[in-house]
Amino acid sequence: MPKMYITRREVFSASHRLWNSDLSEEQNIELFDKCANPNGHGHNFVLEVTVVGDIKNESGYVVDLKKLKNIIREEIISKVDHKHLNHDVDFLKDKIPTAENIVREFWRVLETKITKAKLSSIRLHETENNIVEYRGEE
Amino acid sequence: MPKMYITRREVFSASHRLWNSDLSEEQNIELFDKCANPNGHGHNFVLEVTVVGDIKNESGYVVDLKKLKNIIREEIISKVDHKHLNHDVDFLKDKIPTAENIVREFWRVLETKITKAKLSSIRLHETENNIVEYRGEE
Amino acid sequence: MPKMYITRREVFSASHRLWNSDLSEEQNIELFDKCANPNGHGHNFVLEVTVVGDIKNESGYVVDLKKLKNIIREEIISKVDHKHLNHDVDFLKDKIPTAENIVREFWRVLETKITKAKLSSIRLHETENNIVEYRGEE
Amino acid sequence: MPKMYITRREVFSASHRLWNSDLSEEQNIELFDKCANPNGHGHNFVLEVTVVGDIKNESGYVVDLKKLKNIIREEIISKVDHKHLNHDVDFLKDKIPTAENIVREFWRVLETKITKAKLSSIRLHETENNIVEYRGEE
Amino acid sequence: MPKMYITRREVFSASHRLWNSDLSEEQNIELFDKCANPNGHGHNFVLEVTVVGDIKNESGYVVDLKKLKNIIREEIISKVDHKHLNHDVDFLKDKIPTAENIVREFWRVLETKITKAKLSSIRLHETENNIVEYRGEE
Amino acid sequence: MPKMYITRREVFSASHRLWNSDLSEEQNIELFDKCANPNGHGHNFVLEVTVVGDIKNESGYVVDLKKLKNIIREEIISKVDHKHLNHDVDFLKDKIPTAENIVREFWRVLETKITKAKLSSIRLHETENNIVEYRGEE
Repeated sequence: MPKMYITRREVFSASHRLWNSDLSEEQNIELFDKCANPNGHGHNFVLEVTVVGDIKNESGYVVDLKKLKNIIREEIISKVDHKHLNHDVDFLKDKIPTAENIVREFWRVLETKITKAKLSSIRLHETENNIVEYRGEE
Repeated sequence: MPKMYITRREVFSASHRLWNSDLSEEQNIELFDKCANPNGHGHNFVLEVTVVGDIKNESGYVVDLKKLKNIIREEIISKVDHKHLNHDVDFLKDKIPTAENIVREFWRVLETKITKAKLSSIRLHETENNIVEYRGEE
Repeated sequence: MPKMYITRREVFSASHRLWNSDLSEEQNIELFDKCANPNGHGHNFVLEVTVVGDIKNESGYVVDLKKLKNIIREEIISKVDHKHLNHDVDFLKDKIPTAENIVREFWRVLETKITKAKLSSIRLHETENNIVEYRGEE
Repeated sequence: MPKMYITRREVFSASHRLWNSDLSEEQNIELFDKCANPNGHGHNFVLEVTVVGDIKNESGYVVDLKKLKNIIREEIISKVDHKHLNHDVDFLKDKIPTAENIVREFWRVLETKITKAKLSSIRLHETENNIVEYRGEE
Repeated sequence: MPKMYITRREVFSASHRLWNSDLSEEQNIELFDKCANPNGHGHNFVLEVTVVGDIKNESGYVVDLKKLKNIIREEIISKVDHKHLNHDVDFLKDKIPTAENIVREFWRVLETKITKAKLSSIRLHETENNIVEYRGEE
Repeated sequence: MPKMYITRREVFSASHRLWNSDLSEEQNIELFDKCANPNGHGHNFVLEVTVVGDIKNESGYVVDLKKLKNIIREEIISKVDHKHLNHDVDFLKDKIPTAENIVREFWRVLETKITKAKLSSIRLHETENNIVEYRGEE
């Protein structure tokens, strides 16, 4: 059976601040520069979730994209959209909310919830110029 | 020799209806929801065809993109643009025209026509949020 | 008070066929070419609705974009998304569904429903290269 | 002399919270919904500044876009990028930082700084679906 | 009759050099900076041509966009695409090919060739951040 | 440790001419068509550089994107932006500046300069429809 990669794109608007509480203020500013602004800043994050699987004969689908969309919206978007990622999101507590760490935690959430296909990649566009992708590799 | 991946992007406007004639109307609506609308609906499909091969010394090209473009336009775009995918396209007859099945059939058509490089991936954007990719894996 | 122009963008996927039943088949093909394909074709139409009004002191808004979005979705998107514009849409019955006529009828629908600000412009992108705009001018 | 409209596009990443301190918490939530989240949220704001003027014979320019870019970056971007619009920006103090009010204050700042051409329009994209424009009309 | 604005978007790839032969080398470098590079540089210019007119009852069109596209391609694109704007284009000879001057000359060419509707605006995107528009105003 | 792919996008405007000096004029025109125009042509090239590596605990970063950006700008963008790729760029001398060869030489430059993570892919968009990618494979 042919294996297809299915991608769903979602957008959310959130704020964050990059800060490592184990480091001094000087070290944080050295490391994170304007991303360490005490009052935070924000982005329209663009999220692309890709799953892979076989085409089902009955539907011609790998997965029903409506259902994949609903999982992403319930498990991720409803928890991060119009939120502050340092303060308002349980699964990001005690993490420095860099794009890398956000993607890593999104993967942890989604891999247990997406059961009809295999999670293949999560991409997060922080700006139109900065993009992070995780493919499940350790 | 360095191996390069060359992508050509094309756009076509077509309509389709998702319907499995082996299932009841209730089952089709359960499965395909608004995509089962009897009169169909449509999209500006964005197609990305990627081939891979070595750079030729004489030209500095892997393939002449004009020729790749012409193959895609003759074999695919001329047959699906401004068409109804359920009724007007020979190589989609008797298929449920989901993005997955469309990509699979595009691959069948193109892999025999593209001879100067190896077909590596076909991506089809059905909307700006829904994308399907096939990389030739079974 | 400063006058602000507020634009909401929505996308819908629909099919249509350009055909004037007062003309012969030859005349229709001469006029509409591949857009006259008997089984129709489709697009991801991108709709931009712009209203103009004063900023309210209490909210800092001209209009609440959530409410404007809801009006557009209820009055327009729910009626045209995943539909065939020639057959499934009451307010387009007996119109040739060119982008021009679609925009004209969208204006008729929306100008009576948007009451908190003045309708200023409706733009409809049929493809990434073809765009029609109406500004209420006769 | 022909009059030309020249647009410079810039992007900045900022957070904000919509809140009217003259209203109760219930009224704020009624009015601003998820935009009233106590810890704020953020966007990649896309700013388009348009000026109008005559072409100069010597340069073929209306304005030197490098100079226009520098004014926008010095007067606006350096003050709002990677900032919290409620707390970190002098010219937004005591304003509800809706897109409408942000655009209005940007206009106030820029109209005194851009002297080689006339400010014609400021557009601010808060998301890919929500856009506000001011053209200097009262 | 409702007046509609119809926009056709085209892209062309060209090179140019900004240089005023009445000025010294120092003055040119002061004025045009890196745009005065002796060997030139280039862009994918994005052109948007907007015409305005009444909807025709017979077709539901203001203009047949295929015909508008053909005029733009014959009169403009075929003459500037894959060309050097300083050396290869008759109607730009002896002009400094700034975006402003290019748009002005495109207008001169197109206003005599587009007869079925009124030319309303020509916009030229030199980069994704720099845009020039002419609306026929003196 | 999770491996993350980090992409930085940059844009540059350059001109080039495709010409193989070992071939006759007829052969060059046969091979390169309008890309062989004697005075050259140009593009807004979009460059995407992807590196891969582990997340560092201290920063939550794989690499500091500001530093990656600075390397790309110093080593690549400052040398190709607003230049003629055939004449003005040391590391492209005696190469036919096809997108394939440009990407190959960018890889040679960057792989010795990026030391904090492994270079994974370089993509170059010559136009919105033509894209070349190199992943370091021979």
